[in-house]
Amino acid sequence: MIKAGIIGSTGYAGAELARLLCGHPEAEVVWYGSRSYQDKAFASVYQNMFKIVDAKCLDDDMDRLSQEADVIFTATPQGYCASIISEKILEKTKIVDLSADFRLKDVSIYEKWYGIEHKAPEYIKEAVYGLCELNRSITKEARIVANPGCYTTCSILTLYPLVKEGLIDPATIIIDAKSGTSGAGRGAKVNNLFCEVNENMKAYGVTTHRHTPEIEEQLGYAAGQEIILNFTPHLVPMNRGILATCYASLKTGVTAADVREAYEKWYCDEFFIRLRHDGDLPETRWVEGSNYADIGWRIDERTGRIIAVGAIDNLVKGAAGQAVQNMNILFGLEEKTGLEMIPAFP
Amino acid sequence: MIKAGIIGSTGYAGAELARLLCGHPEAEVVWYGSRSYQDKAFASVYQNMFKIVDAKCLDDDMDRLSQEADVIFTATPQGYCASIISEKILEKTKIVDLSADFRLKDVSIYEKWYGIEHKAPEYIKEAVYGLCELNRSITKEARIVANPGCYTTCSILTLYPLVKEGLIDPATIIIDAKSGTSGAGRGAKVNNLFCEVNENMKAYGVTTHRHTPEIEEQLGYAAGQEIILNFTPHLVPMNRGILATCYASLKTGVTAADVREAYEKWYCDEFFIRLRHDGDLPETRWVEGSNYADIGWRIDERTGRIIAVGAIDNLVKGAAGQAVQNMNILFGLEEKTGLEMIPAFP
Amino acid sequence: MIKAGIIGSTGYAGAELARLLCGHPEAEVVWYGSRSYQDKAFASVYQNMFKIVDAKCLDDDMDRLSQEADVIFTATPQGYCASIISEKILEKTKIVDLSADFRLKDVSIYEKWYGIEHKAPEYIKEAVYGLCELNRSITKEARIVANPGCYTTCSILTLYPLVKEGLIDPATIIIDAKSGTSGAGRGAKVNNLFCEVNENMKAYGVTTHRHTPEIEEQLGYAAGQEIILNFTPHLVPMNRGILATCYASLKTGVTAADVREAYEKWYCDEFFIRLRHDGDLPETRWVEGSNYADIGWRIDERTGRIIAVGAIDNLVKGAAGQAVQNMNILFGLEEKTGLEMIPAFP
Amino acid sequence: MIKAGIIGSTGYAGAELARLLCGHPEAEVVWYGSRSYQDKAFASVYQNMFKIVDAKCLDDDMDRLSQEADVIFTATPQGYCASIISEKILEKTKIVDLSADFRLKDVSIYEKWYGIEHKAPEYIKEAVYGLCELNRSITKEARIVANPGCYTTCSILTLYPLVKEGLIDPATIIIDAKSGTSGAGRGAKVNNLFCEVNENMKAYGVTTHRHTPEIEEQLGYAAGQEIILNFTPHLVPMNRGILATCYASLKTGVTAADVREAYEKWYCDEFFIRLRHDGDLPETRWVEGSNYADIGWRIDERTGRIIAVGAIDNLVKGAAGQAVQNMNILFGLEEKTGLEMIPAFP
Repeated sequence: MIKAGIIGSTGYAGAELARLLCGHPEAEVVWYGSRSYQDKAFASVYQNMFKIVDAKCLDDDMDRLSQEADVIFTATPQGYCASIISEKILEKTKIVDLSADFRLKDVSIYEKWYGIEHKAPEYIKEAVYGLCELNRSITKEARIVANPGCYTTCSILTLYPLVKEGLIDPATIIIDAKSGTSGAGRGAKVNNLFCEVNENMKAYGVTTHRHTPEIEEQLGYAAGQEIILNFTPHLVPMNRGILATCYASLKTGVTAADVREAYEKWYCDEFFIRLRHDGDLPETRWVEGSNYADIGWRIDERTGRIIAVGAIDNLVKGAAGQAVQNMNILFGLEEKTGLEMIPAFP
Repeated sequence: MIKAGIIGSTGYAGAELARLLCGHPEAEVVWYGSRSYQDKAFASVYQNMFKIVDAKCLDDDMDRLSQEADVIFTATPQGYCASIISEKILEKTKIVDLSADFRLKDVSIYEKWYGIEHKAPEYIKEAVYGLCELNRSITKEARIVANPGCYTTCSILTLYPLVKEGLIDPATIIIDAKSGTSGAGRGAKVNNLFCEVNENMKAYGVTTHRHTPEIEEQLGYAAGQEIILNFTPHLVPMNRGILATCYASLKTGVTAADVREAYEKWYCDEFFIRLRHDGDLPETRWVEGSNYADIGWRIDERTGRIIAVGAIDNLVKGAAGQAVQNMNILFGLEEKTGLEMIPAFP
Repeated sequence: MIKAGIIGSTGYAGAELARLLCGHPEAEVVWYGSRSYQDKAFASVYQNMFKIVDAKCLDDDMDRLSQEADVIFTATPQGYCASIISEKILEKTKIVDLSADFRLKDVSIYEKWYGIEHKAPEYIKEAVYGLCELNRSITKEARIVANPGCYTTCSILTLYPLVKEGLIDPATIIIDAKSGTSGAGRGAKVNNLFCEVNENMKAYGVTTHRHTPEIEEQLGYAAGQEIILNFTPHLVPMNRGILATCYASLKTGVTAADVREAYEKWYCDEFFIRLRHDGDLPETRWVEGSNYADIGWRIDERTGRIIAVGAIDNLVKGAAGQAVQNMNILFGLEEKTGLEMIPAFP
Repeated sequence: MIKAGIIGSTGYAGAELARLLCGHPEAEVVWYGSRSYQDKAFASVYQNMFKIVDAKCLDDDMDRLSQEADVIFTATPQGYCASIISEKILEKTKIVDLSADFRLKDVSIYEKWYGIEHKAPEYIKEAVYGLCELNRSITKEARIVANPGCYTTCSILTLYPLVKEGLIDPATIIIDAKSGTSGAGRGAKVNNLFCEVNENMKAYGVTTHRHTPEIEEQLGYAAGQEIILNFTPHLVPMNRGILATCYASLKTGVTAADVREAYEKWYCDEFFIRLRHDGDLPETRWVEGSNYADIGWRIDERTGRIIAVGAIDNLVKGAAGQAVQNMNILFGLEEKTGLEMIPAFP
């Protein structure tokens, strides 16, 4: 059994991780870290876990934790993981960081978009960007996995084959994304109250959302050139789900068959990616509760653009599920171990 | 592997059954019956099942089905199961009926409340009322299991120990229940449109809801006397979940300790029943997606009443989950096989 | 024009009051009080008011306010109004208090249920309980109007004719109420986050909710005897609306005609009370955004109980609308002035 | 008093029109047309109107209706208005058509996108496209007003100043729009059931939605050239509201001040258009229930694009409200008469 510790286990992503690991046949949670709820029973904070988890929430004593855990998940605010990481810890355990600390290779971009100093830039280079479908081969040997963001996972997976195969003009990419409210976390903020979110639709972080450079960097690797794009997130009155509607101009001569071929080439053997039939588009309800990313697209002959749409559960493939998938890769398990939840509808 | 057939697989309860059986280690679905969607791919109707189920929807040829399936689940409108059941079928297969056809022992009560003639009253006596926690010993040998209704499962489980142990006056029972909208089914009705249900709260079926006699009959067995009660269902703008708020006058001298003792006596070993700590009350979010029934209560010293509250997922413990639990009992499997889903929150 | 001041204008009830008064032909808001948002533009806090209200939020300088305003609405936490009220203020202005400070005549009951000391018990006696349909004749001359609670308005209006006319046994009253989330206020609490409320149904304050003694007191006056009852509120995933499902045993011999007659006697001339046709029950969507209270009922011949159901918009008839109705009474206007909003659906 | 008839009064747009006209000081509804509910009381279909409207639903006898009504609103499916319009009718009454029949000037485009033959192409030319803020001067004299679509109203108003003033490259326009579910109408369809819409986000009509040519035509007039663009609608789990997120590349040298100036030039005197402060973006909750269109924008210096966002209530400014605004223009009333509803929040 893999012994897992979770720092930040009482946020929505951390708790989903706890839930997935409790159902994982090869892993167990040995440490429910939570500064906010220290000494309280985890199941009193997340009462879905009543009679399932007996443990109390603990502090974040990394020394002890690194001795007890084979892998530590940090589901913590930006800056935390970078502030505690050390050689001493990495000698004993692996880190899957659900924050953004090790996602961007250029520390100046990190510091600019996140507005904080990076406390451990010396570890950025060795950290692997854990988008499993693209980077699994290098993840295997990693000590630090930077678990991708929710919007970024959905956006990159949706656009990757188009960019990688050179079918679209990268300068024309626009990503209009919509997310359920669990993505905003469990912090007590007026903006996330039921009455503020229900019966409302809004864009936020327009031109400034921090997932922008992450998408640009990863798609830039695929394109072999720098990419600058627009990413606009929206808040939707639902608990879970991300839908990314991606626009780009197809290069001259690119056909529908070329597009299909590109997606099949990259994803036909991927268990967690479901390419929709031609013309069919994904919806968040069809992936809710699962680790699937559903992808579909349409080509508009009138404008020469492709509209590619991706859907994931932001807490699963967009956070905890992908973190477990990375753990499976790190420890040589089959990737889908503990992740075969069938989407729940309705 | 148990071979299971589902008649009515494209209703919400039928589809949830399909989903649970697809994740069940000892069962497989060999027949996705659906009159409405015959010859269509099941996964085109329930696209959460895309790339998971390849089968097409079939008719309801009971002859063929009874030969191919070890168990048939009928997730069909009232009257259907009674209209097709026969000795020929029962010789070859078992029936778990999710409709009300075999729940009530008194055929005249069935015909009065449901307004239709019962086509197979000769089978009513042998059918077992499949509320697993109470009737598992007789379910084992059954050929026909009447899977309880959603409201009834929640209401009976919540009140049973109080009635059975004689702690309350049965004449004072009032059940005020609230259900998510999936309980209304997938039929295209104006009343169930999003805009009609969202931002609305209403009672329906007041004094006439068909689950009333079912609750009365089962609690009557517990009390050893006829029980007449009020049951009032309400429609809530959410997908899943039933909350039953039950009121009754405690008999003179009954203490809080007596109440706790009664609940513990009946449920302390039940995997799927989670008794809340004193004073804590259940909420539907803590059981969503799982087969748990959470139960809590408070005693009002001022009025002498107990307010006992139960919560279930109406599609799982209230329908498909309990049907699988009954299948497990019928085939000698551990009851929780395939049903250990941890509630998903948020 | 009546000059109105609002203390607590940036809570949900206060802001609804501001909205209604801005649309009122005979009143204007001269003071938007808000400790939390002092010096901020009111329209930056409630952006529905953008380009409609230019004023900034002010403090709660009661001296100045009582000079500038003909009426002060206190939409503030319990205890505030009692702490600032004085003869000096009441000489210059009228008070409509949306908190509970002057609703209960027995100060010891107030202090027991609210857990705080009452700072101005000397004003309790003269304060009028402003349930307009019952108390308008004494409200006219009042200096202090205690605006009723949301649950209490709905519960009392629904049960009043039954109690007053002696048709039910008061000892058997049970009120099972359901409220939209705006009733919980705009405070930043985890329990009121979108993801905590959405897809959930729960009871709260069971046996302890503070509206209980208020209902008991008012119905007690109607009955001419002390009444002890059960009141159980529930939180519903919707913004607005209260549904109160009320149960009671009819006295022997009471007929359906008696019940209809009682309701007609008390409400047939009431503009804001809409008695449903026989057997029809109200739903919150049919009153949303309006000052109406819809009331319907069914009699269960089997149990001898009546189930009477009331529906209001908790922010309008349950708070701000009734406050305006009281203002209209205080200043001799037609009661429906500024309150003829037609319910909005969907 | 203007006498108004409504054909299709029991759809969501028709019923909202009825509601607005009932609150209009200078108009009254003399004809509630509804084929589906003929002879039923209107208030039994829309129970928010209980005790407010006594009338029964009538057929669509246009002869009689044109004699009784000064204006007829057709809130009917595409093709209906064109099928009944005639000189005889237009001699006696005015038509405000909420369907698409007279919105597009090129009948071949209508027939291509709507897939039906146009039955009255001879009236297309004289019909006025009733986007009030742009066309009020010609609407005054019209006999037929084509009331704009919901998405189109929001999209055109948001983009018009940018196109008209030549600040953006029209070939780069992408409109990603999100709508509440009332836009889908009150028809009993599985896709619009609560459980299908709730907890879901999806795009639909991608590359094929019929509002596309309407937006292209109107913006084309503004640009003085043909415009081809992408318009992608999405269904949001809320009742009301449209948010249109519009992307376009700014022409070289265009500054933030130029953009502000363009919007101010066109909208600074418009009562129903609220331009947000720099950087602020609209949300649907701030306009719900009102006739306002809120518009804001951000410029992305990195990509050279502007992201302009518009928000309206789809049933008010996007349908019934604008129809009343057009009626006011037709009859020489002040445009905001009966339309000064303040947005309701929450």
